[in-house]
Amino acid sequence: MARQRSRGWNELEAVTLLQSVLGVSHAGVAVAIGDDAAVLQSPRGKLISTVDVAVQGVHFDRRWLTLTDIGFRSFNAAASDLGAMGARPLGALSSLILPKGFEPRELRELAEGQADAARRLKCPVVGGNLARGSELSVTTTVMGEARKPLLRSTAREGDELWLIGNVGLATAGLRLLAAGSKAKSHAVQRCIEAWRRPLAQLEMGAKLVARAHAAIDVSDGLGCDVTRLAHASQLRVIVEAHALEATLTSDLMQVAATLGVSALDLALSGGEDYAILAAGTAAKRPRFAARIGHFERGKGAKLELANGRRVELPSGFDHLAR
Amino acid sequence: MARQRSRGWNELEAVTLLQSVLGVSHAGVAVAIGDDAAVLQSPRGKLISTVDVAVQGVHFDRRWLTLTDIGFRSFNAAASDLGAMGARPLGALSSLILPKGFEPRELRELAEGQADAARRLKCPVVGGNLARGSELSVTTTVMGEARKPLLRSTAREGDELWLIGNVGLATAGLRLLAAGSKAKSHAVQRCIEAWRRPLAQLEMGAKLVARAHAAIDVSDGLGCDVTRLAHASQLRVIVEAHALEATLTSDLMQVAATLGVSALDLALSGGEDYAILAAGTAAKRPRFAARIGHFERGKGAKLELANGRRVELPSGFDHLAR
Repeated sequence: MARQRSRGWNELEAVTLLQSVLGVSHAGVAVAIGDDAAVLQSPRGKLISTVDVAVQGVHFDRRWLTLTDIGFRSFNAAASDLGAMGARPLGALSSLILPKGFEPRELRELAEGQADAARRLKCPVVGGNLARGSELSVTTTVMGEARKPLLRSTAREGDELWLIGNVGLATAGLRLLAAGSKAKSHAVQRCIEAWRRPLAQLEMGAKLVARAHAAIDVSDGLGCDVTRLAHASQLRVIVEAHALEATLTSDLMQVAATLGVSALDLALSGGEDYAILAAGTAAKRPRFAARIGHFERGKGAKLELANGRRVELPSGFDHLAR
Repeated sequence: MARQRSRGWNELEAVTLLQSVLGVSHAGVAVAIGDDAAVLQSPRGKLISTVDVAVQGVHFDRRWLTLTDIGFRSFNAAASDLGAMGARPLGALSSLILPKGFEPRELRELAEGQADAARRLKCPVVGGNLARGSELSVTTTVMGEARKPLLRSTAREGDELWLIGNVGLATAGLRLLAAGSKAKSHAVQRCIEAWRRPLAQLEMGAKLVARAHAAIDVSDGLGCDVTRLAHASQLRVIVEAHALEATLTSDLMQVAATLGVSALDLALSGGEDYAILAAGTAAKRPRFAARIGHFERGKGAKLELANGRRVELPSGFDHLAR
C-alpha cells in the first residue's frame, strides 16, 4: 500500500493533534490516546478498550474476501490490540454502516464471521449500531480487563525482543490474491488463509502479562510496529535478521520464492498477521515466544545482518496516506 | 426524514437477524443487543457500553453544522444511551473515517467539539482510531458503570410515564434550518441550538436509578421511543396529550406557529433532543421529571386526547429506511 504523505500531513501528526485537543488529564485515565488500547481506572478495576474500523475499498476488497471473512478479520484486528495489552476480553460492540441495497443475506454473512470470531476469542458481541452510508464499514469496539496491562512504553534496556505468532504470511497471501494466483498448494492456501482469517493472540497475550515488560501487536508490519515499541520505550531496538529468519515457516519461504521476493522482506514489511512483539528478560521468555532481537540504549530501529552490519528498518505504514 | 421500508427489510428485522446470529448466551452478559446500551458483568462490577455513529449526508449536513457542532452532538448522541441506563461515565473512544482532502484545521475543529462534550459530560476521550474513507463519519463508543442499570424492559403496570428534558425543540430547529429561516428571535435561536448542541442527560439519568423502574432516551422521537419502552416492558403506554403539552416551552409554541405545525406533533415525532423517558411510581417521581402519561396492561402506544379519545402514536423512525 502507498506510503506517501497526504497533503502535507500524516497519521502521526493527526494523532498528535488529537492528543493535544482531546488528551485531557483526568483522574480515571491510566493510559490514553497513543497505546494499543486505552486503560481506564474504575473503582472496580482496570478496563481496557480499543476500537478499529474496516472500510470497504480501503481495508478490504470484496473480490478477495467473503463478507464472512470481513466480519471475522475485522473483529480479530480490533481484538488484537487487547491481546497486546494482555487483557482478558469482556465483550465487543459492532457498529455497521451499510450501503443502500445491502441485503439481509449479506448482513447475515457478515454477522456470521463476527460471531465465529467472538466464539473463537471468547469475546461476545453485546451491542452495536446500524446506520446507512455510501460505503460498507465495520467498526468494532473490544473491551477487556487486566490487573496489570502491558504497555508499549515499558521495555527496558537489555531486554530481549520476542515474537509471538507468525509474520509475513498474511501479506504473502494478499500479494498472491493481487497477482491472481491460481495455485492450490498447501503453502499458497496457508498464506491466503492467514490474510483472510487472522486470529488475535488473546490467550498468548494474557500469558505474557506475568513475563513481559512491554508489548505491541503487529498490525502494520513488524518493522513499523517494533519502531513504535522502541520509540514509546525511549530505546533502540535491534532486530537480528538470522533470528527472525529462523522463525519463518517453510510455507512463507516457498511463497516468497514464487512471488520473487525475499521472505525476510515479507516478514518485516507485511502487516495484518496480528502477531505480538514483546520485550522481556531471557529468564522469563515463555516457550511460545521466539527471541528475534534486543533493546539497547539509544534511538530508532535497526536490522542487524548476519555479518554484523546494521541497516535501517522499513519505516512504516500510515493509515492516512492514501 | 423518509420512513418507507428499504428493499423489503427494516431496522427491526436487521436487529432481529443480528440478535439471532450474534446474540450468544454468555455468562458475563447481563443485557445484550436490544437495550440502550450493553451491560457486562465483570468480576468487578457492571460495565455499561454503547456505540453510535454520525455519517455525513445521513446524520448531518455540513451546511447547517460546523465541524465543532458535529463533534459535540455526535458525542452527546452516543452518551445519551448511557444516561438512559443511569450509568456514570468512565470514558469514550472516537473512531473517525476521514475523506481525502480533510484538513488538519478541520480535524481540530471536530475534535474541539468532542473535547467540549467530554468536559461537559465528565467523560474523557481515552482512545480511538483514524482511517480513510469516502465520507466523513464519527463513531463514538461510550463506557460507564452502574450498580443497577435502568433497562427498557422493567416498567410496571400502573407506573407513571416521566419526561426528563425537553422534546420537540431540536426537530423545530432542524426544520427552521431546512426552511432557510433567517429569523433571529430568542425562540428560533434556542431551537436551532437545541438541534446543534444537544446535551445528554447523564446527571439526571444517574439520579433516576434509585427512583425509576425503567428508562429509554429519546433519540428517534417521543412517539417512537415510548413505543419501544412499552414493547420491551410488555405493557401499553398512554401518552396524555394535555400533560405533554403542559411541558412544552413557549419557545417551541412560538416556532411551531411560525412553521405552521402543531407543537404537539413536533414533540411527538421529533428526535435528537436526547431527553429521557422513564417509568416509576408517583411517590418516587423526582422534581426534574414531568408526568406525561402512564402504563397499563395491554400492548402498543396511544395518545389520549383532552376529550378522552385515544389515537395511535406515530410509529417511529427507521435508521435503515432511506
